[in-house]
Amino acid sequence: MRGLSLSSIVGRIAITDGMDDQAIKALEDAGHEVTSTHYSIEELLDGVLAEFDAVVVRSATKITAEVLASSSSDGSKLGFIGRAGVGVDNIDVAAATNNGIVVCNTPGASTRSVVEMTIGHFIASARHIARADRSLREGKWQKKELKGTEIAGKSLGLIGLGRIARGVADAASSLGMEVHAYDPYVQSSPDWINMHDDVDDLFRKCTHISVHCNLSEETRNLVNSARIGMMPGVGNDGTACGNHIVSCARGGIVDESDAAMALQNGQLQTLALDVFDREPLGDSELLSLDGFHGSPHIAASTMEAQRRIGTEMTSLLIEYFETGSPSTSLN
Amino acid sequence: MRGLSLSSIVGRIAITDGMDDQAIKALEDAGHEVTSTHYSIEELLDGVLAEFDAVVVRSATKITAEVLASSSSDGSKLGFIGRAGVGVDNIDVAAATNNGIVVCNTPGASTRSVVEMTIGHFIASARHIARADRSLREGKWQKKELKGTEIAGKSLGLIGLGRIARGVADAASSLGMEVHAYDPYVQSSPDWINMHDDVDDLFRKCTHISVHCNLSEETRNLVNSARIGMMPGVGNDGTACGNHIVSCARGGIVDESDAAMALQNGQLQTLALDVFDREPLGDSELLSLDGFHGSPHIAASTMEAQRRIGTEMTSLLIEYFETGSPSTSLN
Repeated sequence: MRGLSLSSIVGRIAITDGMDDQAIKALEDAGHEVTSTHYSIEELLDGVLAEFDAVVVRSATKITAEVLASSSSDGSKLGFIGRAGVGVDNIDVAAATNNGIVVCNTPGASTRSVVEMTIGHFIASARHIARADRSLREGKWQKKELKGTEIAGKSLGLIGLGRIARGVADAASSLGMEVHAYDPYVQSSPDWINMHDDVDDLFRKCTHISVHCNLSEETRNLVNSARIGMMPGVGNDGTACGNHIVSCARGGIVDESDAAMALQNGQLQTLALDVFDREPLGDSELLSLDGFHGSPHIAASTMEAQRRIGTEMTSLLIEYFETGSPSTSLN
Repeated sequence: MRGLSLSSIVGRIAITDGMDDQAIKALEDAGHEVTSTHYSIEELLDGVLAEFDAVVVRSATKITAEVLASSSSDGSKLGFIGRAGVGVDNIDVAAATNNGIVVCNTPGASTRSVVEMTIGHFIASARHIARADRSLREGKWQKKELKGTEIAGKSLGLIGLGRIARGVADAASSLGMEVHAYDPYVQSSPDWINMHDDVDDLFRKCTHISVHCNLSEETRNLVNSARIGMMPGVGNDGTACGNHIVSCARGGIVDESDAAMALQNGQLQTLALDVFDREPLGDSELLSLDGFHGSPHIAASTMEAQRRIGTEMTSLLIEYFETGSPSTSLN
């Protein structure tokens, strides 16, 4: 059967960037035909997606307007794009909408994982955990050089106050930090979070900054030399803890070249990045700096998040095939 | 003036392993004569401490019975030993007591720092933070290999339930862990901490174990192959997260050779140590293992802890010189 109708509760699903095994099994158990394989951009442009009713991607597969233009053929038409994760930078949602294709993601599934990674990166920064391990492996015992500072008693500034940032706020607050945030798009926030109307004020107030916004023209290079230069370097508790920045959001929001300069001139004591302007990172001047440590875009990469993503995506797909419209979608 | 009497509120104080600058200034402002210098074991055995009314050490200076035997001379006698920190492994407290010397430490000053380091080491372990940074610096982008697990939804087992362990319990609980503990010496504990009478039960129940006891004949090699083999490897939430051990307590409690073997055979997924059987660590088979990361005994080494230690030690010294007996002491 080609083309989806309300009577077709069994569908052909392409999983192009992998998904949790149990989720794939649940889809197969529900009678769906699942093909888990990665397609090249040539195959995508050649219309391979027209063979499927639904496709589920992570970030590796790019669903451009051109790919979508070739996603229907005689009597067969892709109707559902699932993003197993949060960010849909790799999907042209407007083009999908124009083509009558529903787009769904699983926004809450990885929140906890990213929250923990953010807190982990802050403590690893303030206490030099990655640097200490490197130093030990080089046969050194740099007890004095690796004196750190506590995160308790310091001000944390959140750029963006969505689901993940609110989780970070809760965790940081329970660990003794004072929480500040800037988000021109939120209407309401808990009383105990100090909201700022001007992002510069957030930098002036906070020794610790965490990035939790999308990449857009508005946020590109938002964390730059000028703003890093505004950070106070001294915590609320009077400790000269220096300034610390973490980003587990998207590359391009922290200006890596400005941040490298700030690490060298001491405006920034540490920088921890899980995301980069160019991924994979490859060569970078950051890698030669002691105050930097990084991870390869793994903040959401946990067994728990992948299981939750699989469970949520399976529900959305089954709803879609049963009713023609999933309970939540992005368009 | 030699010898301390109640009328001598001004004393000669040796600071042999350094102390916070502001604390030294406060002592000098109070009229005390402060000598901040490190003495060799020969100088100590030669009676250099007899020149002082009080000595403040960290861990580098060893105050043995022999050193104490030479700490008095004609009309001059050391009367106060301050440990700027917690552990008094380096001070023969019994010999001090026999010599009528009061011994004080600053037990609460570094609690927060060690709590944060412990949590930081657990997240760094579960999310491969040190390993990810090494991998990035080697030019790799190991997104798949570095998939981690959340600490939320897992059981944390605390060996020892003193001040630091209770702080770790609070933090871990606020981050979504279920907390278990073993401590044959505590009389009472909060309801929400699951106490175990048998340390083996703690290992059987917990995927995450944190060491918070002293080193003694009873605790030496307490964390060994047999007990690591009892750990469940699967969290309360059903995640096959593997087993994780952190120690920021004292070297010798975790059997490093057994732990290395457990990392190699997979019984242990990660091990993070701030303390080692031999310090400085030098060569160790642990350093060749991906699942290990370490730090050079810096869990209490923060600006905040050092400031609090200095403030507390200054108060104890001033009380001692004013009244002959500080408000708290170890003997």
